[in-house]
Amino acid sequence: MRFKPLLLSLLSFSALAELDHVQPSSWWIGMQHKDVQIMLHGNDIGDDKVRVSYPGVALIDVQHTDNNNYLFVTLRISDDAKPGKVGITLDSDTAWVDLLEREPGSAQRQGFNNSDVIYLITPDRFANGDSTNDEVADLKEGKNREHVGGRHGGDIQGIIDHLDYLDDMGYTQLWLMPVLENDQASYSYHGYSTTDYYRIDPRYGSNGLYRQLSDQLAKRNMGLIKDVILNHIGSEHWWMKDMPASDWINHGGKFVGTNHRRETMHDPHAAPGEAAGFKDGWFVPSMPDLNQRNPLLATYLIQNSIWWIETAKLSGIRLDTYSYPDSAFLSEYTRRVMQEYPNFSMVGEEWSTNPAIVSYWQRGTKRHDGYQSALSSLMDFPLQDAVVKGLTAPETWSSGISSIYQTLANDFVYGNANDLVVFPDNHDMSRIFSQLNEDIALTKMALAFYATTRGTPQYFYGTEILMKNPGTDDHGVIRSDFPGGWPDDKVNGFNGKGLTAEQAGMQAWLRQLLNWRKTSAAVTSGELVHYIPYDGTYVYFRVADKQRVMVVLNKGQARTVPMSYFHAMLGDAKQGKDVMLGSDVALSGDLALDAKSVRIIEF
Amino acid sequence: MRFKPLLLSLLSFSALAELDHVQPSSWWIGMQHKDVQIMLHGNDIGDDKVRVSYPGVALIDVQHTDNNNYLFVTLRISDDAKPGKVGITLDSDTAWVDLLEREPGSAQRQGFNNSDVIYLITPDRFANGDSTNDEVADLKEGKNREHVGGRHGGDIQGIIDHLDYLDDMGYTQLWLMPVLENDQASYSYHGYSTTDYYRIDPRYGSNGLYRQLSDQLAKRNMGLIKDVILNHIGSEHWWMKDMPASDWINHGGKFVGTNHRRETMHDPHAAPGEAAGFKDGWFVPSMPDLNQRNPLLATYLIQNSIWWIETAKLSGIRLDTYSYPDSAFLSEYTRRVMQEYPNFSMVGEEWSTNPAIVSYWQRGTKRHDGYQSALSSLMDFPLQDAVVKGLTAPETWSSGISSIYQTLANDFVYGNANDLVVFPDNHDMSRIFSQLNEDIALTKMALAFYATTRGTPQYFYGTEILMKNPGTDDHGVIRSDFPGGWPDDKVNGFNGKGLTAEQAGMQAWLRQLLNWRKTSAAVTSGELVHYIPYDGTYVYFRVADKQRVMVVLNKGQARTVPMSYFHAMLGDAKQGKDVMLGSDVALSGDLALDAKSVRIIEF
Repeated sequence: MRFKPLLLSLLSFSALAELDHVQPSSWWIGMQHKDVQIMLHGNDIGDDKVRVSYPGVALIDVQHTDNNNYLFVTLRISDDAKPGKVGITLDSDTAWVDLLEREPGSAQRQGFNNSDVIYLITPDRFANGDSTNDEVADLKEGKNREHVGGRHGGDIQGIIDHLDYLDDMGYTQLWLMPVLENDQASYSYHGYSTTDYYRIDPRYGSNGLYRQLSDQLAKRNMGLIKDVILNHIGSEHWWMKDMPASDWINHGGKFVGTNHRRETMHDPHAAPGEAAGFKDGWFVPSMPDLNQRNPLLATYLIQNSIWWIETAKLSGIRLDTYSYPDSAFLSEYTRRVMQEYPNFSMVGEEWSTNPAIVSYWQRGTKRHDGYQSALSSLMDFPLQDAVVKGLTAPETWSSGISSIYQTLANDFVYGNANDLVVFPDNHDMSRIFSQLNEDIALTKMALAFYATTRGTPQYFYGTEILMKNPGTDDHGVIRSDFPGGWPDDKVNGFNGKGLTAEQAGMQAWLRQLLNWRKTSAAVTSGELVHYIPYDGTYVYFRVADKQRVMVVLNKGQARTVPMSYFHAMLGDAKQGKDVMLGSDVALSGDLALDAKSVRIIEF
Repeated sequence: MRFKPLLLSLLSFSALAELDHVQPSSWWIGMQHKDVQIMLHGNDIGDDKVRVSYPGVALIDVQHTDNNNYLFVTLRISDDAKPGKVGITLDSDTAWVDLLEREPGSAQRQGFNNSDVIYLITPDRFANGDSTNDEVADLKEGKNREHVGGRHGGDIQGIIDHLDYLDDMGYTQLWLMPVLENDQASYSYHGYSTTDYYRIDPRYGSNGLYRQLSDQLAKRNMGLIKDVILNHIGSEHWWMKDMPASDWINHGGKFVGTNHRRETMHDPHAAPGEAAGFKDGWFVPSMPDLNQRNPLLATYLIQNSIWWIETAKLSGIRLDTYSYPDSAFLSEYTRRVMQEYPNFSMVGEEWSTNPAIVSYWQRGTKRHDGYQSALSSLMDFPLQDAVVKGLTAPETWSSGISSIYQTLANDFVYGNANDLVVFPDNHDMSRIFSQLNEDIALTKMALAFYATTRGTPQYFYGTEILMKNPGTDDHGVIRSDFPGGWPDDKVNGFNGKGLTAEQAGMQAWLRQLLNWRKTSAAVTSGELVHYIPYDGTYVYFRVADKQRVMVVLNKGQARTVPMSYFHAMLGDAKQGKDVMLGSDVALSGDLALDAKSVRIIEF
């Protein structure tokens, strides 16, 4: 205000501008971190004078880039500020930021944990609950259900419509593949080409509907996990038409592919430039790779995640392509989010089968280089690989079911292996039923294993009805439509109509298993104790104070195992219950096992 | 001396005994650790009064066990004591311990390092230099060259006789499989069933001849590495006839097999008892498993290694079955040996392909549990496995030659990966030529790789003449006799007589390679820098101040690689030399590669 005379004089030299973007356009009082950075985008605003006059809100900093159409304004929000509209006045326009009160308990929200079961959904392929948004006027790609890589019309309303089914199945957390606007000309259904970080894609619904989903889940004691992409955007992101800064996108905004060799980041022998080749390279030309070393972009991304946690009442975040962004940024990103939400959960996707590389990113891991991370969880890709190999490879000293045992035995490398997310498959690989050669017995063993081993299990939508991708690993086939999600579907997985006996059987079996799991303190909070496998049989226990569970995976022929071998875990217990059969089981003598079978016994 | 009257009175109640064993029977003045524990074994000596009267030698402690035929006497040797015979007087006999001066430079001896090439010999199968010791009167098993698991008569003299050959080949360190007395009734040739820790098996020679071997090696600037077994003894060890203590052998001296699952030692989920089942179990009934938690045994084993280092002027120790003995003992063992010889080298055999498990034991590794280790080196089993898989598996994103790259990229888990011993094969697995399906081109690639990557290479005897084990992995076949080591051999690998052209070619090729290696500062002391493999081609550099070496392994078809890709390593250099061809190589344009080939270029 003191400089008003000068401002007026400047105005006379400056073209009148209108703001195109204000992001974020709302923030909260009472955050741990008191500052918020507002990105302002408008024609030639770079030289504008910035003024803020709102009680309890201080203008801390105004930063410019080499693009005069951007300003980054930092506000400091005191805890005694009142809700309202904060005006950021430029010469020619005013940006309004909603200052909001936080909902009670927001900071202390509980993330997902071992008591949860995560269900991964491809929103375009699960259920079409609102046909009116199949085509949206201002978005490029429309619906084409005939095209395996096209948009099929699934949406958030479709998910809301089937929450009772999901709740009934025993899933407690939904991880949706990204639902932010992806206004790409083609191949946009997967959601990994963000074109606006603050807008739910209208073909899925709206920011409001996304929050409704979260509220509907909360009513069922279920949670919502957001798929967050820090590494790249879509080539149609509005930034690409007017770059916020010349260093906003790696390789100067031109496509150079990543080498995908994450080893380069850790490798003491890495050739010069190859770690940068991993980090800074793009996935594909349609996914410009963000340069998080730009501190304005780093703050933008951090705030965006916090904004969605607060706005949509998230219970967790899944971080896509975790190791590809700048490592120092990841350190700061995880620190900032966990600073706001100390009980929150974030799971990173580091697709390596090497536990030394996966564990590097987890909170609490003893590292060789002093790197800091507050990331609570990682996707357990090493275990995923070991389970498929373990169930399909011949039984030898170093292959077969002992692969599973050996991988879990390696848990000492992790900061906390119990916090890992474990999964039989996901949206980027063949479905587990296909990986196990469409063997139902092996698939049951795998699903039961994930429901009962350490970590938080995640299942991909349709696994319960044996969805598969025979003869191809095309992602569009892997992410086929869930039957019954479209009005004219002949088969309906939600009500069972038209399912084969095998599909219906697996669905009922998994429903029983997951609902039992909810009741099992041993599985949801107990220790894992496992025995060396012999002859294709792997036995482990989950141990809580008042309950124990014995799991026996038998990959080989029908046999018996002597219960006396497990006396240290069985203790004085005489009788248990077969969880799936409901029958009593003597905890002495020999336990009979069918060929290729799993038994789960609680006592 | 003060108690002489009492002693005399005790004598009258004690049977007169004669000492059967005094171990060690010599020790040195001027060690870092001033105490030495002497094991005395004789009938009913347990209650004897012990007296020592020698200037500078103090009797510190006398320890008894629950076997009255043993006493453990601890002497403290001051640095100003003079050489001579120290008498340890019991009631009925006197044990004499030679007090010796150390040889100059003993403590500062240099262990093996990256400048060395280790040659692993099965002494019974290399050369029979002394037929008079093929049968030894007081030892049970004689020579039977027709029997694949029998003794074939090779000996230390045979090795001494061929040192010029070994020196000429470029090997600089000899690791002999164990040569201590193995007076087992059968299957004793391998040497891993010790029956006396202080005696070279007379069928190999004598303690004196072993020292002669070391001296002969030293003349050639070569070193001697002793194979030390801390985990077990042979069932015919004299201890087994009169156990030093009832807890000397695990499982009360009765055979219980080890589960061989080293994971149990690290596994946070290990079932009760399974780590002990690994550690305390025996390999086979003929190998009683030592309980190193007995402190008298622990000290006995530590001293024995120091005794041999000092006596035989060793340059290194290879520690058999490294992780099987008690872990705390291993910590103390390595600390004590390295305390005496700070520049010494010890390499542990931890046969796991999991680097997290192998690296656990190395000095300097960041561990999850605070375990201490002074072990300088481990055998790089993960790399051995990766090289064979890398050279034989199809080329995909996650298999093929990138396995080698990925394994080396994982070096961040080691305290010091450069200190590892790298090897294409050893005495316990199929020969590398067999593992590579008798493919000479792949074998050359493997041998060249080991000669030029980080670490200290070790080759198994006969590798240079393509020894193989077709159709079997019988250890007796793997450890076949080196041709020419026996007078009537029709083929002679030492002078080339009767070798096939392929054998002679490989021998000449490896000789050239290893002798060139000696001259290459880049390989023997430089950094390793490697590039991400593409299309089956793996390129790496060794980099020293004044020399660089470029190695190209091409597993696929004939092709060219653009040298410009490696400009960061090539720098301004214009021309290099192909080490094996002797020809000039332009360091610009395209480098031509033959199918399945290796090029080594220095500049």
